[in-house]
Amino acid sequence: MYVIWALMFSLLAVLLVKGFAPYACGSGIPEIKTILSGFIIRGYLGKWTLVIKTITLVLAVSSGLSLGKEGPLVHVACCCGNILCHLFTKYRKNEAKRREVLSAAAAAGVSVAFGAPIGGVLFSLEEVSYYFPLKTLWRSFFAALVAAFTLRSINPFGNSRLVLFYVEFHMPWHLLELLPFILLGIFGGLWGAFFIRSNIAWCRRRKTTRLGKYPVLEVLVVTAITAILAFPNEYTRMSTSELISELFNDCGILDSSKLCEYVNDFNSTKGDDLPDRAAGPGVYTAMWQLALALIMKVFITIFTFGMKVPSGLFIPSMAVGAIAGRLLGVAVEQLAFYHHDWAIFSGWCSPGADCITPGLYAMVGAAACLGGVTRMTVSLVVIMFELTGGLEYIVPLMAAAMTSKWVADAIGREGIYDAHIRLNGYPFLEAKEEFSHKTRARDVMRPRKSDPALTVITQADMRVEDVEAIVGSTTYSGYPVVVSRTSQRLVGFVLRRDLIISIENARKKQDGIVSTSIIYFTDYCPPQSPNSPSPLKLRSILDLSPFTVTDETPMEIVVDIFRKLGLRQCLVTHNGKLLGIITKKDVLKHIAQMANQDPESILFN
Amino acid sequence: MYVIWALMFSLLAVLLVKGFAPYACGSGIPEIKTILSGFIIRGYLGKWTLVIKTITLVLAVSSGLSLGKEGPLVHVACCCGNILCHLFTKYRKNEAKRREVLSAAAAAGVSVAFGAPIGGVLFSLEEVSYYFPLKTLWRSFFAALVAAFTLRSINPFGNSRLVLFYVEFHMPWHLLELLPFILLGIFGGLWGAFFIRSNIAWCRRRKTTRLGKYPVLEVLVVTAITAILAFPNEYTRMSTSELISELFNDCGILDSSKLCEYVNDFNSTKGDDLPDRAAGPGVYTAMWQLALALIMKVFITIFTFGMKVPSGLFIPSMAVGAIAGRLLGVAVEQLAFYHHDWAIFSGWCSPGADCITPGLYAMVGAAACLGGVTRMTVSLVVIMFELTGGLEYIVPLMAAAMTSKWVADAIGREGIYDAHIRLNGYPFLEAKEEFSHKTRARDVMRPRKSDPALTVITQADMRVEDVEAIVGSTTYSGYPVVVSRTSQRLVGFVLRRDLIISIENARKKQDGIVSTSIIYFTDYCPPQSPNSPSPLKLRSILDLSPFTVTDETPMEIVVDIFRKLGLRQCLVTHNGKLLGIITKKDVLKHIAQMANQDPESILFN
Repeated sequence: MYVIWALMFSLLAVLLVKGFAPYACGSGIPEIKTILSGFIIRGYLGKWTLVIKTITLVLAVSSGLSLGKEGPLVHVACCCGNILCHLFTKYRKNEAKRREVLSAAAAAGVSVAFGAPIGGVLFSLEEVSYYFPLKTLWRSFFAALVAAFTLRSINPFGNSRLVLFYVEFHMPWHLLELLPFILLGIFGGLWGAFFIRSNIAWCRRRKTTRLGKYPVLEVLVVTAITAILAFPNEYTRMSTSELISELFNDCGILDSSKLCEYVNDFNSTKGDDLPDRAAGPGVYTAMWQLALALIMKVFITIFTFGMKVPSGLFIPSMAVGAIAGRLLGVAVEQLAFYHHDWAIFSGWCSPGADCITPGLYAMVGAAACLGGVTRMTVSLVVIMFELTGGLEYIVPLMAAAMTSKWVADAIGREGIYDAHIRLNGYPFLEAKEEFSHKTRARDVMRPRKSDPALTVITQADMRVEDVEAIVGSTTYSGYPVVVSRTSQRLVGFVLRRDLIISIENARKKQDGIVSTSIIYFTDYCPPQSPNSPSPLKLRSILDLSPFTVTDETPMEIVVDIFRKLGLRQCLVTHNGKLLGIITKKDVLKHIAQMANQDPESILFN
Repeated sequence: MYVIWALMFSLLAVLLVKGFAPYACGSGIPEIKTILSGFIIRGYLGKWTLVIKTITLVLAVSSGLSLGKEGPLVHVACCCGNILCHLFTKYRKNEAKRREVLSAAAAAGVSVAFGAPIGGVLFSLEEVSYYFPLKTLWRSFFAALVAAFTLRSINPFGNSRLVLFYVEFHMPWHLLELLPFILLGIFGGLWGAFFIRSNIAWCRRRKTTRLGKYPVLEVLVVTAITAILAFPNEYTRMSTSELISELFNDCGILDSSKLCEYVNDFNSTKGDDLPDRAAGPGVYTAMWQLALALIMKVFITIFTFGMKVPSGLFIPSMAVGAIAGRLLGVAVEQLAFYHHDWAIFSGWCSPGADCITPGLYAMVGAAACLGGVTRMTVSLVVIMFELTGGLEYIVPLMAAAMTSKWVADAIGREGIYDAHIRLNGYPFLEAKEEFSHKTRARDVMRPRKSDPALTVITQADMRVEDVEAIVGSTTYSGYPVVVSRTSQRLVGFVLRRDLIISIENARKKQDGIVSTSIIYFTDYCPPQSPNSPSPLKLRSILDLSPFTVTDETPMEIVVDIFRKLGLRQCLVTHNGKLLGIITKKDVLKHIAQMANQDPESILFN
């Protein structure tokens, strides 16, 4: 029955995605990152995607697959933001303004998904957005505030709390406990790197082999396997959020869960109402079940993320970490209980007292695994606070997040979102990596030495047919305009599209424009002899402030300029003469080439 | 006795500052902001400043003046960072790298001052730093982690907590309470704007009149007045941190403070262990004392901030807000108690129960006032969390912070640090304001139309004496090098300093360099006739990739380029010919001019 329901939900989800909105699959964060960096994916943030993603997200989560709702909710929020933008002229016309709205929408998305408004703003800053000025920070903050306020008004958890996994721990942590926390960080980093590699390898196989042709079948098979494996184990049968919540929880005297079956026949020296910490049979059973759940989650998530249903990564990653953390926590706890006379425990862990909080280990483990997969740091720690209210555990969380990032970065430099961006070949100029090679603009610009000269348009002596011939024989998106072919002094840059439209319009609507009309890009147009055709003035479509660098400019600076100013192309001059052009694609290709020549990066990619 | 001790401490502090390290005064944050934006203040981050500031900060805080330790601690941290930088060649030589270290140091400073590691990172991002790439974010995060870890190891509060003002509230807040919270936000904004205006007016008077000549006397007078006014009132006599801590605290049954003297003869409907909420005589006395303390703090802080002692603003601002908040909180509480039948209280505030937490109001008020003065948003809310552990009150805090920022921004656009930067005339290019005027590069560049032409150096036909004449007759920091005077095609840019040093060295050490030697900036140097003096080759000092824009480039873009790339100057070309130059000072002057022409900004400044 469980399996049949799961199959029905997932079948419906994948059919809806396949039939109506192919963009509704996946988490959407890699694509939003790419869009925010200036690339346009038409329809990705449209209303169909919104409707279908919302419906299928519910179905996909209900089907028991190992996926979360957070990433897709960010995508949904961005769809809403984009659609609202269309209502206001100011945003409809201005690409940059719209991107600011999308950044704020991403913040609101996380804010709603987790009830973590500040974490949402920081997630948008650290992980999603490409360019994040302070103004956008405040706007995102406001969006997140409204989102949190709305959430609070609706009060979905029924406890006047925004916090999803509220924990209340009794004991402060001891400095020596940092050791297991750092171990959890290392585990998180290893898991993150392993997950990214395996997932990318599997997605690449899906893209290149016949497997990709049967997305519906794939979803059904994975759902069936998940359901069959998950059902017998109570920790995988329950919803993943519940599982995390239970793992985070500290055992009070009233807790009846198996995880809290401690033997109570030791005399507590403190006489408090906490159970003594010798693990009972229930705990041992739970440990086995959790270990099995861990193995299952680890593998099934690799195959789930990237299927043709909406799928987020936060919850599965956190579950893996929480299970590992709880296992380690119970182990350390038992160690401290049975060996409280060891030197490392002496002084802070009196016999019979509970000095270890396994729930805290679960929390730290969850943070470490999430960090390993996404490579977040600040936003991760803030999200963990806001999720759990565990403000006192800032140092353990930070230590685990940092270790996890270091370990994962040492194995593979990209986070899961960047890896998927590269897998899909989006033109994304990574803002995080420093470019430190010693090449210069002249090494990257086109034309190369052996190629024919750069196609240029002169400002005052070309005929309409000459320009049409240039436009017809090349596919560049724009052409530099120079004073004359001999001087090669740059006047401006004209876009191919503008050029085609202007000439077409002029031929249709303007009298006397024929193939032999001279095109003038100058302000002043000399008087024509009476029998020559009337001239075509195109100064208005000329961009008079194209970006230029000299051929000697180090590529380090060029890359920096492209990133910070969001350029699509840049002209290269030498001693005031136009020499060539560098486009964003040239820059990306160059960075990739340099990275491949670098022996270290071969090892790490 | 109290007054005499205060006078002794403050006298010692001001004498030390005046005698050994004049830079040790004030909060230091405006100067650090300026330094991070690329300006150099020699000795500002040196070892003397470090030593003297550390000592005098202790003295100034002990003297009972209305000042805090947070800003100065950021300065101290940056001094440490700067001094450590000198030990490593990598950082000593690279200005940009050093600034990254300083950003991280600022984060660590706040982390230590408040025990708020994440808040510190965000403070550095939002308030202090000029350019904050993700790499710096992670490094700051690490620095803050180590700082928090060290703090935790030392355990200064003796409770295994980093949290300075730990609060534990019992009641969730009700949506209707947002109204008073927003009122507190408005109060915070008004106070912030009022404080900034008055403080700047006072500091300007100090700078321009005879007052500035007697810093020691000023400090003594202010200390004496503070001490005399503060002593009779128990809320101003105690240290400001204690005051804030007491105001934030909710009244438990065990609290013996006057603020918690509630009348207990009403029968609580809940039968819980909380005191009933009819204010007793103690509360009324406390209210009067607090109101007086508020008035005193408001005025004395205006005169204190900017004196010749280290002085931070966080704690005094928070104190003002906390007092105002507590007053409002008690008022609302009593209103709810005596009028629980009113429609607005019905349904959530049963008779005799305590449904209002005055401590929460104090917390929100503190956030609002701090926000009004500094205009922080995200970092403010995070710092408030980390200070109090009050994670559930995220929406009230966010609402107050946002309101406060809006109100304060409507009255005066600058935060206190920016206002002090402008007061001191540091060349700081504000990264937050958008420049939206329609001027172009040609309107700003020098030379203006009526001025003589730009001073340039030609690449291959100037003699040593010609160049020396140019360097001697002008004071520019650098000169563009062109192909020839007639073509005006730009080759590169040479710094005045490099030029002087190179020519001097060549004259001393190189044979045959005389006043009539030709200077070559070219790669190739043509063979000289035997009887002419040997040529001087200076290509190595030429910057071959100077930044250029065309004369038609909108100033909006030019300002953006200056900000994002941290330029000091930029050359202006037209059709490939060099036309003029724009320096950072020209940009700043232009922005100021345009702001003055704008009728709106006159109103608001």
